[in-house]
Amino acid sequence: MSAHQVAPAQESYVDVLIVGAGPAGVMCANALVGAGVNVRIIDKRPEGVLAGQADGCQPRTLEILHSYGLADQLFKEGSRVYRTTNYDQSPDGRLKRTRLSPLMPAPNARWSFGVGLSQGRIETIFETSMRAKGLTIERATVPVSLKMSEQTNDLVDAHCYVNKVSLTIAMSTSDDSMSVLEVVIERIDDPGHSEVVHAKFVLGADGAHSWVRKTLEIGAEGAMTDSVWGVIDLLPDTDFPDVRNLSYCHSSEGTLFTIPREDDLIRIYVPQSNDSQVIDPETGRADKNRSSPEKILNQARKILHPYRMNVKDNRIDWWTIYVVGQRVAERYSVNDRALIAGDACHTHSPKAGQGMNAALGDSHNLAWKLVYVLKGWAKLSLLRTYESERRNFAKDLIDFDKEWSKLFIAKRQPSNDSDALTQDEFVHMTLKFNSFVTGIGIRYFPSAIVNPQYQGLASKLIVGERVIPQTFVCAADGRPVEIQDMLPADSRFKILVFGGDIAVTGDLNALKEALIAMNLSASFIERFGHDGAVFDVLCFSSGKQQDVGYADFPMFYRSHWTKAFLDEVDMTGREGGGGYEKYGIDPHDGAVVVVRPDGHIGMIAPLSILGVEEITEYFEGFLI
Amino acid sequence: MSAHQVAPAQESYVDVLIVGAGPAGVMCANALVGAGVNVRIIDKRPEGVLAGQADGCQPRTLEILHSYGLADQLFKEGSRVYRTTNYDQSPDGRLKRTRLSPLMPAPNARWSFGVGLSQGRIETIFETSMRAKGLTIERATVPVSLKMSEQTNDLVDAHCYVNKVSLTIAMSTSDDSMSVLEVVIERIDDPGHSEVVHAKFVLGADGAHSWVRKTLEIGAEGAMTDSVWGVIDLLPDTDFPDVRNLSYCHSSEGTLFTIPREDDLIRIYVPQSNDSQVIDPETGRADKNRSSPEKILNQARKILHPYRMNVKDNRIDWWTIYVVGQRVAERYSVNDRALIAGDACHTHSPKAGQGMNAALGDSHNLAWKLVYVLKGWAKLSLLRTYESERRNFAKDLIDFDKEWSKLFIAKRQPSNDSDALTQDEFVHMTLKFNSFVTGIGIRYFPSAIVNPQYQGLASKLIVGERVIPQTFVCAADGRPVEIQDMLPADSRFKILVFGGDIAVTGDLNALKEALIAMNLSASFIERFGHDGAVFDVLCFSSGKQQDVGYADFPMFYRSHWTKAFLDEVDMTGREGGGGYEKYGIDPHDGAVVVVRPDGHIGMIAPLSILGVEEITEYFEGFLI
Repeated sequence: MSAHQVAPAQESYVDVLIVGAGPAGVMCANALVGAGVNVRIIDKRPEGVLAGQADGCQPRTLEILHSYGLADQLFKEGSRVYRTTNYDQSPDGRLKRTRLSPLMPAPNARWSFGVGLSQGRIETIFETSMRAKGLTIERATVPVSLKMSEQTNDLVDAHCYVNKVSLTIAMSTSDDSMSVLEVVIERIDDPGHSEVVHAKFVLGADGAHSWVRKTLEIGAEGAMTDSVWGVIDLLPDTDFPDVRNLSYCHSSEGTLFTIPREDDLIRIYVPQSNDSQVIDPETGRADKNRSSPEKILNQARKILHPYRMNVKDNRIDWWTIYVVGQRVAERYSVNDRALIAGDACHTHSPKAGQGMNAALGDSHNLAWKLVYVLKGWAKLSLLRTYESERRNFAKDLIDFDKEWSKLFIAKRQPSNDSDALTQDEFVHMTLKFNSFVTGIGIRYFPSAIVNPQYQGLASKLIVGERVIPQTFVCAADGRPVEIQDMLPADSRFKILVFGGDIAVTGDLNALKEALIAMNLSASFIERFGHDGAVFDVLCFSSGKQQDVGYADFPMFYRSHWTKAFLDEVDMTGREGGGGYEKYGIDPHDGAVVVVRPDGHIGMIAPLSILGVEEITEYFEGFLI
Repeated sequence: MSAHQVAPAQESYVDVLIVGAGPAGVMCANALVGAGVNVRIIDKRPEGVLAGQADGCQPRTLEILHSYGLADQLFKEGSRVYRTTNYDQSPDGRLKRTRLSPLMPAPNARWSFGVGLSQGRIETIFETSMRAKGLTIERATVPVSLKMSEQTNDLVDAHCYVNKVSLTIAMSTSDDSMSVLEVVIERIDDPGHSEVVHAKFVLGADGAHSWVRKTLEIGAEGAMTDSVWGVIDLLPDTDFPDVRNLSYCHSSEGTLFTIPREDDLIRIYVPQSNDSQVIDPETGRADKNRSSPEKILNQARKILHPYRMNVKDNRIDWWTIYVVGQRVAERYSVNDRALIAGDACHTHSPKAGQGMNAALGDSHNLAWKLVYVLKGWAKLSLLRTYESERRNFAKDLIDFDKEWSKLFIAKRQPSNDSDALTQDEFVHMTLKFNSFVTGIGIRYFPSAIVNPQYQGLASKLIVGERVIPQTFVCAADGRPVEIQDMLPADSRFKILVFGGDIAVTGDLNALKEALIAMNLSASFIERFGHDGAVFDVLCFSSGKQQDVGYADFPMFYRSHWTKAFLDEVDMTGREGGGGYEKYGIDPHDGAVVVVRPDGHIGMIAPLSILGVEEITEYFEGFLI
């Protein structure tokens, strides 16, 4: 039944309708409402997730949350994970610690730890932020049909949502596992509760069984594995000494692992592959009715022997069993109008702690692009880079997951030799994939918005990757400022002008030449800048505080006193210094680094008239 | 008119009545309500301070606020001050920068910068915190009489407030400069608005002209100076390049100085000593009617020449003129029942940015002592240390202020020689007093609660000073934790057990011996501990993560997994290490450090049965 056949349906208009208030949905909604976009977000659940599900934030995710001003709350509520331990079964069946190591080698991460916090509490952080900006989640609400007109115009104009994308949503009556079609049937005698929403864009952030993906007839590549897992969140009463670390316990049953969580809780993943009874022979899916917390706990105890693992205060917050599926959606959008994000796009095992991180990363990548298209600043084609960038990432993720998962199901003989082997494999895999797992090394490949032509001018700031943390000293007041704090997710491109040593005449002249070029009417700033809405210019001199004063910066580079910096250790000797070297930038030649609104480096250019022309050309590729 | 003559007066009972909701008042109120004390706070102002007045937090004050969980908000709202500049007049009358230096050399400060924020906004931070705990300021309310019974009992029992201290308060009708007596007259035909409050303790935090101090007939030592100043808070339109630093501009008129503030504002202090017209010849006090912002600004412009100093958007937030008085109250309490704090105790010039800091320090010192007495944990005599500790500090402060102020009023000839001289004096004074000005080096002298007998066992942790910041690694999860974060202002004494290297048998045995002694019924923990309310035990081993696991700590030292630490660099190589050495503690002998609830070190003891006995004796001196 299409929207237009329901009468008298209420009709409304919105720029973006988000279906699903899980991590991908609330991340996108919060980013859009923060940028002033007219957005609505619906979710079938009458209440937020209270316990369980995804729970870990990797280092890059912390940086992303920080760019939205949301990391402090996460740090406050979550449990930090700094270390990994490995345990192996001795020949006598007793578990023994064989290795203690950092969680992940991530020397370039701003925060080199993970944070464990329940998905519900992470969603609440976003929800609170959204609410402060006037947006609330419309709960107990599901889409029942989606109709899309042909889309030929590459530009978005003010009226393009009318009859382009329309979606009927209805209030749901029960809280769970309700089929979308049934909702419509239940509500059909109460048409006042159905509504026709005309949206410019629809985002399906509605999970692994995405209604939006299915309705769009987007297929998924991949398959279920035979890897079955039990997972349980509990308050431990234990003498296992490493519950506050990420602990891998290798056994002939597979690898059990524990993750520390907030409020002294822990999560335990218990391999179930030897327990065929949990699989429903008809569906081939794991059947929760065939298991129980006690059963999973007993399996855990066998591996953890001789350590005790009991539940304190009867507190089991959540548990489930599941079979791992590894799939990627064939496409991430239809006509760049109806899009999907998060688990709707990709499913994989939770072992590398990537699920929620990938979902948040999807929406972070997408949100600013939607903003640019909706504000009329960018061509619709900008949205194509969402699929190309994030689908490549998802494919890599699943390749990694396949390789990584092997270590968890190997039926090893308990001998010292194979112990060493497994550990070597772990170390090897950790080193091989660490920048991927932490998210720190995620690199988007060349496209309209990633141009590595002048990579050599800042040889260690990799075009397509996020900006490496580094502290500079504010020229006006000497305060040390972390560069990531200058790159908030405020929808603006940051133009980082590394201007050489202002105390050196030649350097200063090049800096002035560039500003003259940027002031020309043909420059990107004048053509695409929209009065400061699109670009934020920051200047970094390699000069020193005693030689270069704030007033020595050309006026253009100090639109505000917080915009001019020096590459130097601050006067208390605690922070900063060595930024040019760390970034591979010549201290006199300098460079201009263009940072996308999501913190990834879009291009590098010479500090010159030519450089400004090159940057202008870059923006011509996707801005209007 | 005493309370009992007013009828029908409402009567009520409270443990602590605080008069005045300035910095000293709200600091004390917030600390008391956080500790569960029954407290009320009244203030004559119908609304909080909106602008002006005190505005700077020194490094130690930041640490104190952090111990109450309030520093984050201050950091977020305030403007940080990292650097000092000195300017001198050239012979041609033009101002030139002659020095750029760190604000204060404070290598041991956790945060080595100052924070500028208006007094009103700082008060609001406390008010918000209090409100979350159920306490609001009763505004437009003044005390009109105070009667005190004879006080002979050294202990506080449940009923001791009845007829011990009684205070009549009445609603005030106008907002400012109203004499207390007048208020009573205005309200006399409306007796329903007066109330007899029976309080166990009264704190006069009612400013330089303290009604409580006068009513208690406490005199003040000292005198007014002939130093007259104008001060103005404004949004600058200027080419003076150092408005975001603390800038001293020396001239023949005296020393003007500017301080950066929140929201791009600055404060300017302008010497007025050559302008006798601003003094009211009858009162000898500065008369605001004899000056104006424009007049002050013109005086500033003369000194700042050739720099421009205009006001942007007509934004002058506040201004005043004043004569500096330098006084200390003769006593800080009567019978340890009616006490005073903040400006009621001491007034001095604002040049060293100490006013609000001293007030906050007073209340921080007093609050936990009141808590201990009120809970029946400590003898009333504990309160005597409030006066001895804080009055000594105030006297030092005024001595410093006198010396420091000389640099600001000197009529120097504008010549290069004298320029150098003044600068040298500044540098000399800065070095001489820096630990005092920053608050980092404030030391309380030996008393019932400061026992330096075993100073040598932790030679660099000075008994009577606050604990030096240092990061240790949590034994259970490897997280780096700053020791000051383990010392919140939660009213508990922290027993820091430096247990040597647990991997070494002899060290472990000494650690076990101490725990056995602490478990004895005669020990301080058993006698004074009140089931964990008074003591928090933390253990620090000099062992390393790969050798010492969490489970290797004797159970006594890990009441929770967050209580056991190692002195080591964390696994990411970023923080921690060298704590024993920094504190001057032998890595095998160890030591026990007793930290007072206000973060100051009360005593150091050997890690042994003798040591536990010595600590018990220390607590016998003031605990019940």
